[in-house]
Amino acid sequence: SVNPDLASERQTASFSVEKLTALLDGGAEQTRIRRAVVEAIESDPVFSRENQYFQTQNERYEAAVRKAVHLQKKMHEMGWTENGPEYKYIYRALSGDVAFLLHRVFMRSISVLGSDKQIAKWIPLATQHKLIGSYAQTELGHGTYLQGLETTAVFDTATQEFILNTPKISAMKWWPGDMGRSATHTVVFAQLYVHGKCYGIHPFIVQIRSLQDHSLCPGITAGDIGPKMNFEHIDNGYLLLKNVRIPRENMLSKFCEVRPDGTYVRQGSQKINYFTMTTVRISLISDEVLTPLMKACTIAIRYSVVRRQSKLKPGEQEAKILDYQTQQEKLLPQLAAAYAFHFINNYLQELFNRGYTEIQRKNFDMLPELHALSSGFKAMITQHCTAGVEICLRACGGHGYSLLSGLPSLYTKILASCIYEGENTILLLQTARFLIKCFMAASAGQPVPPSVTYLAAVKHGKCPAKNKLDFLSPDIYTEAYQHVAVRLTSSTAAKLQDLIQSGVKKHDAWNQCTVQLVQAAKAHCHYIAVKNFAETVEKLETKAGIQKIMKHLCDLFALHGIFSNTGAFLHDGYTSAAQMDMVTASYLDLLAVIRKDAVPLVDAFDFTDKSLNSALGSYDGQVYQRLYEWAQKSPTNQMSPAYERYLKPLLHNTLSKL
Amino acid sequence: SVNPDLASERQTASFSVEKLTALLDGGAEQTRIRRAVVEAIESDPVFSRENQYFQTQNERYEAAVRKAVHLQKKMHEMGWTENGPEYKYIYRALSGDVAFLLHRVFMRSISVLGSDKQIAKWIPLATQHKLIGSYAQTELGHGTYLQGLETTAVFDTATQEFILNTPKISAMKWWPGDMGRSATHTVVFAQLYVHGKCYGIHPFIVQIRSLQDHSLCPGITAGDIGPKMNFEHIDNGYLLLKNVRIPRENMLSKFCEVRPDGTYVRQGSQKINYFTMTTVRISLISDEVLTPLMKACTIAIRYSVVRRQSKLKPGEQEAKILDYQTQQEKLLPQLAAAYAFHFINNYLQELFNRGYTEIQRKNFDMLPELHALSSGFKAMITQHCTAGVEICLRACGGHGYSLLSGLPSLYTKILASCIYEGENTILLLQTARFLIKCFMAASAGQPVPPSVTYLAAVKHGKCPAKNKLDFLSPDIYTEAYQHVAVRLTSSTAAKLQDLIQSGVKKHDAWNQCTVQLVQAAKAHCHYIAVKNFAETVEKLETKAGIQKIMKHLCDLFALHGIFSNTGAFLHDGYTSAAQMDMVTASYLDLLAVIRKDAVPLVDAFDFTDKSLNSALGSYDGQVYQRLYEWAQKSPTNQMSPAYERYLKPLLHNTLSKL
Repeated sequence: SVNPDLASERQTASFSVEKLTALLDGGAEQTRIRRAVVEAIESDPVFSRENQYFQTQNERYEAAVRKAVHLQKKMHEMGWTENGPEYKYIYRALSGDVAFLLHRVFMRSISVLGSDKQIAKWIPLATQHKLIGSYAQTELGHGTYLQGLETTAVFDTATQEFILNTPKISAMKWWPGDMGRSATHTVVFAQLYVHGKCYGIHPFIVQIRSLQDHSLCPGITAGDIGPKMNFEHIDNGYLLLKNVRIPRENMLSKFCEVRPDGTYVRQGSQKINYFTMTTVRISLISDEVLTPLMKACTIAIRYSVVRRQSKLKPGEQEAKILDYQTQQEKLLPQLAAAYAFHFINNYLQELFNRGYTEIQRKNFDMLPELHALSSGFKAMITQHCTAGVEICLRACGGHGYSLLSGLPSLYTKILASCIYEGENTILLLQTARFLIKCFMAASAGQPVPPSVTYLAAVKHGKCPAKNKLDFLSPDIYTEAYQHVAVRLTSSTAAKLQDLIQSGVKKHDAWNQCTVQLVQAAKAHCHYIAVKNFAETVEKLETKAGIQKIMKHLCDLFALHGIFSNTGAFLHDGYTSAAQMDMVTASYLDLLAVIRKDAVPLVDAFDFTDKSLNSALGSYDGQVYQRLYEWAQKSPTNQMSPAYERYLKPLLHNTLSKL
Repeated sequence: SVNPDLASERQTASFSVEKLTALLDGGAEQTRIRRAVVEAIESDPVFSRENQYFQTQNERYEAAVRKAVHLQKKMHEMGWTENGPEYKYIYRALSGDVAFLLHRVFMRSISVLGSDKQIAKWIPLATQHKLIGSYAQTELGHGTYLQGLETTAVFDTATQEFILNTPKISAMKWWPGDMGRSATHTVVFAQLYVHGKCYGIHPFIVQIRSLQDHSLCPGITAGDIGPKMNFEHIDNGYLLLKNVRIPRENMLSKFCEVRPDGTYVRQGSQKINYFTMTTVRISLISDEVLTPLMKACTIAIRYSVVRRQSKLKPGEQEAKILDYQTQQEKLLPQLAAAYAFHFINNYLQELFNRGYTEIQRKNFDMLPELHALSSGFKAMITQHCTAGVEICLRACGGHGYSLLSGLPSLYTKILASCIYEGENTILLLQTARFLIKCFMAASAGQPVPPSVTYLAAVKHGKCPAKNKLDFLSPDIYTEAYQHVAVRLTSSTAAKLQDLIQSGVKKHDAWNQCTVQLVQAAKAHCHYIAVKNFAETVEKLETKAGIQKIMKHLCDLFALHGIFSNTGAFLHDGYTSAAQMDMVTASYLDLLAVIRKDAVPLVDAFDFTDKSLNSALGSYDGQVYQRLYEWAQKSPTNQMSPAYERYLKPLLHNTLSKL
């Protein structure tokens, strides 16, 4: 039975939850397919995550391998294929809790970087799991800066082999997933040396474990890097190479080849490869970043209408905590952000699909813009969503702190997204470099890519809003965001030029501007996200209440950004203090409006109880029963040797006799 | 041997590290005592935390109990007593990783709330560990709002007993430490009923486990609440009471008593009791909040001068990451905050000592102010320090994410401090209520407590700074902070009055102002922290470079607060945009100045390698060796059954035959 405090929230929905779910899925047919996958996965006990919060790292790893192997069977059974419509829902349905994800990256690397001959040899082996692959790029001492990698591959003309070494401890490969315990092969990135000359970083296929008995191959030292904040199910590994010899054919050679005599040959354009790496940043947003935020919102909002604490009105029942303005101010902006980022993700996906078409036509014009957008939005979205999950966790008080709430593991997992696939600060500086370049070009009257044409049209006006309702006009707030983005870019460009003109060296000047450059890049992405949300709302069907509630969320997303960052808008007087008070008033009003639909808005994400895996967030809202039942199953409720060993002697005062 | 990249940082210290350590300790003699305690604890293998990151929750609990029992012996051996000068260093030296902390709370409750007779009976039993105590207040459905507790204690005149019940699942006691598996007794808070009349919440001593065999007593259901984000070493528990009968004498009766005939008698003033609860919030700041931030700064800053990544100047060696402005901007404000909060903590300790003296003289005038300060600063400091630890963690990239860095466990532990001993938002609203009250009183010309007299002296001037150097003047920035605190308090007071005058009911009006009230409370605390830091620096001896570097940190703390919250200072034009640019310039300049002393500034915290327990933060900076050596010991590098069970059949294609 559904907790009446939760049930009542659903009776007053201002829109059709089912229609909103279909909108989020991209159509009712997609919803149907997704649900069928979820049903098939969740009804299979092998995929259960029920005991996850009680398991050790070793148990998590074993379960993940078991699931990965079982998934092969399941896909065959269900008739699912890697190219079928179900495929994208499988990983989501598993909540990513499965091994061999790097095996897929191994295969993609070979497909993208390998010659036709290499693809023909390795891809069938990998597809049939006659080997398990990994991808070894990051080193103990080197992450972001690929040119700094220290692993070497020296070509030996005599034997037609490459000799691989990790010459120093900092050169050891560190972090590659599936490599600590599972992989038999990996793609190693190493500095290529031929006849004493260094040709930079290249990829090599290296076997690390025996296919017979899984023992380490000669010259290989490998293992697991140990405990982490999350990803217990993944065997992130280390790898030392000592004079490991691999045949010449194992260097992936679509773009570069070493001929038998040691001649180094470049062929074709690597730009498609570069584009592929860029798209990875976009592809992770949906499953790794948006889903956790949506789950956290679902858990925290459902809990906040079931949890009653303290009294709003004297003499009345204790109030639902979501009725407190401070609780609304914590949670509802996260909900609005989840929707905003869902829509910007759709926009980016489309843009990258278009980019891919152009690039296949050998038109590489879009590349710099796509790189800047993927870098900036990867950083912005991972940062916002990580902060959002943390806010949801904290907003649930003590119960949020229990692993059984599901929130701690959502947080510790999403946090990693700020670091992997490009550390966020580095990425924002990539975006900033693009912005500065485009701003200079635009100032000089040169054409710039579509997403930054606004930098050319600097307006020195003032915000025209006259009352708080004006701030519910997308034109008003979108322009304010645009103004801030232009101002931060132009003022930082000016500072940079001033420094250089005053004699500071270019790289020093750049370093002295980086704090402000990061601000400019964030403002740029925030502006595009607001604009895109407003444009998306515009195009929605007006029926079933969907457009209206999305408009509220769009307004909230925009005004929350202003309210949380008032200085940026007040700085040059574009927005006045009086207008800022209007923003605050409208923002706080919106909280009360959206609060009414908060539960339906998270219901629309359509997470099953099993996928939430949370004692606080279940559809029926029976929070306290769940917590109690679940706690009783904890291994901490088994007999502990601590009693006989320590407590009994202490209590019986026999300690001194021991 | 010390990593040369770290060693070089120590050669250029602008001040005496040893003198700064002594300042932090409160004198060289204190440093000596502290180090002796650390040495004694760390040289004893029973207290080792070496394998902590590899242990399960059960193992952590057992180790904590073992340590707690061993500590009794150790104290006896060393001649340490609870009243001795060593005592306060013991817990810090153990990094809090020990059981029976609630046993101490149990004893304190009896001392404060019990009659002389009760004290005489129970305290000796507890001191000799003939029982193990706990403290059962929080319920599954009730935390902050004590009046809402549902556990009942009904007086039965016939048997002279109280009958205790947790009538609903939400009434179950939940979270009490040491209660899940260890405690034999606990202080239960319950609604007292006599002859059908409810007298509100009272404390009762209840035995929950047999002193003979530790089995649960009749009517008791108790156990461990299961996995949490941290505190694996503590057996936080649950407790169900079903018609549990305890003698009349077990109600703690210093302030209230039920006579044999059921007469309810109040006696004495509970204000000292109330004061005691208030001081707990201050007492946790040092060990639970400041120490973790200081440790995190030590780890992240040492790592940031050892880690080299990418190039600042083309052609040069890769740069230390602390040389990047963005990295400085992440870490150095946290370092400044650690010092700022250390000094405000000293200030609060002194203030509370004075308060205690006054209260013993039956002068309770300071109570409201002390309550407001302890609430506000508990919230402000826990929030800032938690955010600071998280920033340190993220600033270490992938290696920060490894448990071996020590940062994840610092973060997951400090996070709890935002929730326990009063949820932060609730506490800030307590402070805000005090501010509004005092502001109204001050406006009406009535006297107000010393910390808020500034609210009476509202100035409508402008910030007088003319250039960026002016913002290194404590008078300039302290006044700016004061101005913001006054403005936020007065504008929210005005909004509150407007709402009430326009007919909104008082409690609704309050709720509609809470987001802004929280801002006002934060601004108040921030102002006091800045002012106190500036005043502390003023009084420091000018020798040995200490005052100079502390002045830099004070400036950084102040300017970082303005830079991160520009809107508050720009809003009413007190600070102009041009002045804000000066703030930014001075702030960024300061980063480069303090960066030079960053390592000596964390060295001064004087943490041993064992107390940091971090592969990234050790004194010698041998980061990569540590990570590798440590990872090899991980249980994830033992043989896994996953190979024989799943990987081998997969690789050998025998899966289908299984």
